[in-house]
Amino acid sequence: MTNKPPHKSREKVKELLLNLQENICNGLEKLDGQEKFNRESWIRPEGGGGISKVLKNGLVFEQAGVNFSEVYGKQLPESIISQRPEAKGHEWFATGTSMVLHPRNPFIPTVHLNYRYFEAGPVWWFGGGADLTPFYPYLSDVKNFHKKHLDACNKININLHKVFKPWCDEYFYLKHRKESRGIGGIFYDYQDGSGEIYKGNNQNGDANRISKEIGEINLSWEDLYLLAENCGNAFLPAYEPIVLKRINHPYSEDEREFQLYRRGRYVEFNLVWDRGTIFGLQTNGRTESILMSLPPLARWEYGHNSIKNSREDLLTKIFTKPQDWLNDIDLEKYCKEKNIYD
Amino acid sequence: MTNKPPHKSREKVKELLLNLQENICNGLEKLDGQEKFNRESWIRPEGGGGISKVLKNGLVFEQAGVNFSEVYGKQLPESIISQRPEAKGHEWFATGTSMVLHPRNPFIPTVHLNYRYFEAGPVWWFGGGADLTPFYPYLSDVKNFHKKHLDACNKININLHKVFKPWCDEYFYLKHRKESRGIGGIFYDYQDGSGEIYKGNNQNGDANRISKEIGEINLSWEDLYLLAENCGNAFLPAYEPIVLKRINHPYSEDEREFQLYRRGRYVEFNLVWDRGTIFGLQTNGRTESILMSLPPLARWEYGHNSIKNSREDLLTKIFTKPQDWLNDIDLEKYCKEKNIYD
Repeated sequence: MTNKPPHKSREKVKELLLNLQENICNGLEKLDGQEKFNRESWIRPEGGGGISKVLKNGLVFEQAGVNFSEVYGKQLPESIISQRPEAKGHEWFATGTSMVLHPRNPFIPTVHLNYRYFEAGPVWWFGGGADLTPFYPYLSDVKNFHKKHLDACNKININLHKVFKPWCDEYFYLKHRKESRGIGGIFYDYQDGSGEIYKGNNQNGDANRISKEIGEINLSWEDLYLLAENCGNAFLPAYEPIVLKRINHPYSEDEREFQLYRRGRYVEFNLVWDRGTIFGLQTNGRTESILMSLPPLARWEYGHNSIKNSREDLLTKIFTKPQDWLNDIDLEKYCKEKNIYD
Repeated sequence: MTNKPPHKSREKVKELLLNLQENICNGLEKLDGQEKFNRESWIRPEGGGGISKVLKNGLVFEQAGVNFSEVYGKQLPESIISQRPEAKGHEWFATGTSMVLHPRNPFIPTVHLNYRYFEAGPVWWFGGGADLTPFYPYLSDVKNFHKKHLDACNKININLHKVFKPWCDEYFYLKHRKESRGIGGIFYDYQDGSGEIYKGNNQNGDANRISKEIGEINLSWEDLYLLAENCGNAFLPAYEPIVLKRINHPYSEDEREFQLYRRGRYVEFNLVWDRGTIFGLQTNGRTESILMSLPPLARWEYGHNSIKNSREDLLTKIFTKPQDWLNDIDLEKYCKEKNIYD
């Protein structure tokens, strides 16, 4: 550990994440224009609590959930200890804001955001990110989402995004489907300001390789706090323009059905692979808040097949695989040809 | 291990389980009266394969999936080795028939069945069971389902059901919801014919306690083969009468919505807690066949609440908790009073 958290570190991050929740909810209410968030605060019997905000049956959002929590306890679950053995035997504190939006129109992507902070004895770290899951993507939307997060990372250090982008691709991956959850975004975890910035498990992935090439980056607690702030604030500018552009896009019943089918994949990822969900369920978290990420409606279909070169086929062929969205000229050309650029 | 499997043991069980698949599918097609099963055979690159049969958009069944598989490999996944360390380092063979039915009418319960057989070096075992998940239950239906499985077990040994019934309750339990999946049925695993019949993990549960009270029961390979046969054949008599009784039960849109909501719980169980699903995904199984158990449509709702003493409220108060369905006189009286007996 290169440095200690500052005085009142927990309160500072808590403040940041509560503000993030509020700002996002305000932005989303304006965007929806019809429904408001319902606020519910809750207490965790073992320590801590949270504020869950849910907007249901909106004009834009079929369901939007933005959750803040601040929890503490005596023993961390195994899933965390195995990652950070130094935290063993210490009391721990965790705070986070997480969000999943399920828009009604299949041309507006589903999106997820989560920023969080841990302390346990001598150990502290920041984690977080945001990732986009379109059903009928346009490349310009994808580019905007990535560009805003790139800019947010660059304000702290121009090497961070090079690692956080592939880390996101590797994290939001459905191994049993051999598919990415969507077009990614950024993801980082266990950021304690010291050493190489990739601190995940995948030794064979691009994130680890690029992180090794870059070498060590020492960031202060304050840098990482600002990183969370910048990235959190990047969300609305990254997502709002997509909603505004697609909100009146007409869609057919088949397109709606395809959205529901792909939402099934979202459920599969969250329940089978997502460490955040598993952490929540293991620490006896508030089930209703943890599973707020699940869609209001989803469907499964045995042996689903898309017509070759259809919009649906392109989703799995191009948009559920890691790509260099911002710089790949061939991809841009291809999407323009297929009328899925703008 | 008290005894060795007989000559051609693998072929014998395979034959049994293929017949079970066929008989069940024939029975279900008659019951549906409209749609037929679509048959798809597949090969597992690492060894083995299977036959998946799916009926979609039927009159009775919104989706019915009955899957047979026979797989083998060089190394068992950790989840099995930790249960049966003697199997470590041996080639393994596994065959199974599993089924999940998602009826359209909310008054017909969802139901699951699975019978399977393993061999790995010196180790072999049978496992299986069936469990019922009603949305708007009637006690007489529940009793019929349990009675038919009790009778099937009793033909082999009158002590088996005493353990397999609570084992089922303990297995099909959603810890994060503090709820049973449904009204249970029977469940058994790791049956190698020797020692106490409870061979699960839960040392504090009724299944373990009752198994210890009963003491050792030695069963031959042939007994356990017959047990699988009896229980497998008990399925149609246990389920058909329920379908025939409820098929014309009228239902409202709200009742349909409640069914979809409760189907969400089914997804949660299968993806978070079900060992069979996890085994399949870990052994690089055929994802489409493994996830055939997931419903054609499901929904989630943050903070769902039922009106006190409504039919929906009674489901969670009475029918997602373990009960002595066959013998509890007070429960029978209560259900008759509430008009949910017959």
